[in-house]
Amino acid sequence: MTDLELKNRGTMFIISAPSGGGKSTVLKEAMKDIDNIEHSVSVTTRPIRGQEVDGIDYYFVSEEKFKEMLDDNQFYEYVNSDFGPKYGTPRKQVDELLKSGKDVVLDLDYPGVQQLRQLAGERVKAIALLPPSLRILRDRLVNRGTDSSEVIEKRMSMAEKRVKEAEFYDYVLINDDLNTVVEQLKAIILSTRVEKRNISNLGECIKCIVEDK
Amino acid sequence: MTDLELKNRGTMFIISAPSGGGKSTVLKEAMKDIDNIEHSVSVTTRPIRGQEVDGIDYYFVSEEKFKEMLDDNQFYEYVNSDFGPKYGTPRKQVDELLKSGKDVVLDLDYPGVQQLRQLAGERVKAIALLPPSLRILRDRLVNRGTDSSEVIEKRMSMAEKRVKEAEFYDYVLINDDLNTVVEQLKAIILSTRVEKRNISNLGECIKCIVEDK
Repeated sequence: MTDLELKNRGTMFIISAPSGGGKSTVLKEAMKDIDNIEHSVSVTTRPIRGQEVDGIDYYFVSEEKFKEMLDDNQFYEYVNSDFGPKYGTPRKQVDELLKSGKDVVLDLDYPGVQQLRQLAGERVKAIALLPPSLRILRDRLVNRGTDSSEVIEKRMSMAEKRVKEAEFYDYVLINDDLNTVVEQLKAIILSTRVEKRNISNLGECIKCIVEDK
Repeated sequence: MTDLELKNRGTMFIISAPSGGGKSTVLKEAMKDIDNIEHSVSVTTRPIRGQEVDGIDYYFVSEEKFKEMLDDNQFYEYVNSDFGPKYGTPRKQVDELLKSGKDVVLDLDYPGVQQLRQLAGERVKAIALLPPSLRILRDRLVNRGTDSSEVIEKRMSMAEKRVKEAEFYDYVLINDDLNTVVEQLKAIILSTRVEKRNISNLGECIKCIVEDK
C-alpha cells in the first residue's frame, strides 16, 4: 500500500427513530467496526444524573448559559421548550470533529433535521430507522418494562408521526433484522466517505497519482 | 422477520478505470456478495470471437443494424467511431433490468458518463476507480504481458486523462488494497438501495408499518 490517502471532509449523520426503535443497539454495532466517527454531545439544561459525566453524556449548563449560547447562534439545532429541559447541538464541538476529518453522529428528530439542513445542508445525511410495525414497537416498549402504559401510549402516538416523516429523510432503514440494518448503516457511512464531494484532498491525490510515473 | 420489503428502483452504476486498473477483479469480488445486480451487455459491430456468446458477452450486430438503432434513439450512450468497431448501451435491455428492481453495472469511460447523465441523470452513479500511481499501473500492464510497449505507452497516456477526469465522478476509489476497495464498492451499491429516492414503495411500506398496530 502507498501513502496516498483520500481525506474525509466529515459528514453529520442524523439518525432518527421512535423510542424503542433499537437505535442505540444498531449504532453501537455499526460504530464498533468504523473508525473516525463520533457521537455529538448535546448541551442540556437538565440536572446531571447518577453516573453521567459532563462533556461525555451531555454538556450540562444553566438556563442563563443556554440562553446566551442561543443568542450567540452557537447551536446547529435546539429544542427550546418553555417547560422541561432545553437541549441543543453545539456548533463549535461538532465543527471541530468535522475539521479533524471525523464523521459525527447526531441523535435527533425531524425538527432537528430541518434546522441542520438549513445551516449545513450538504454536510448532512438524515437516516430514518423504522420499526417493522407499530405492533412490534409496542411489544418492545412493553417488554422493556421501563414505561407506564400511559407513557407507552404517548410514545406510540409519537412513533406514528416519526414513521410518517420518513419520506423526508435521505435514507430509510427498517429495523427488522439487526445484521442487515447494521450493514446498511455502515454502507451509508463508508460510501459517503468516498463521495467525491466529501474528499477534501482529491486534487492533491490526483496530482500524486499522475506525477508518480 | 416480516414480509415488509423496501423495493429498489434500480440504479445504473458506471465504473470507469484505466486499462490495467483492476476493474474486473474488483467488480467480480463485489458482485459475488450482492444479489440483484447485473452487468449491462453492450451492442457492438465487431465480429464475434472465440468463446464469446451473443447476448452474453455482447449483442453482435451489423453496421446497418447499429445505424438503425442509433437513428431510433435506442442507445443510452454509444461510441460511433468511423474506423474500428462501434459500441453502444441498449436502452431497452437496461430499462428492463431496472424495471425488475435490479441494479445495472456499466463499464464506460467519461464520455459515456456524460451521455448517460443527460438521459437518465438521477438514476446514474458514476464511480472512478484509480490506480495508486501511474507507475504501479505501468507495472501491472507490463506484468500482464499482453500488450506491446507501444500499446502500453498509448494506454498510459489514456490513463493519465482518466485519472484527471476523476473529479467529475460521484465517487472516487483508489485501487490500492483490494479488500478495502471491494468493501467501498459494495457500500456504494448497498447504500444507494436504501436512499429514499430509490425506494419505489416507501409510501406503501409506511402505510403497512403504521396500520399494523
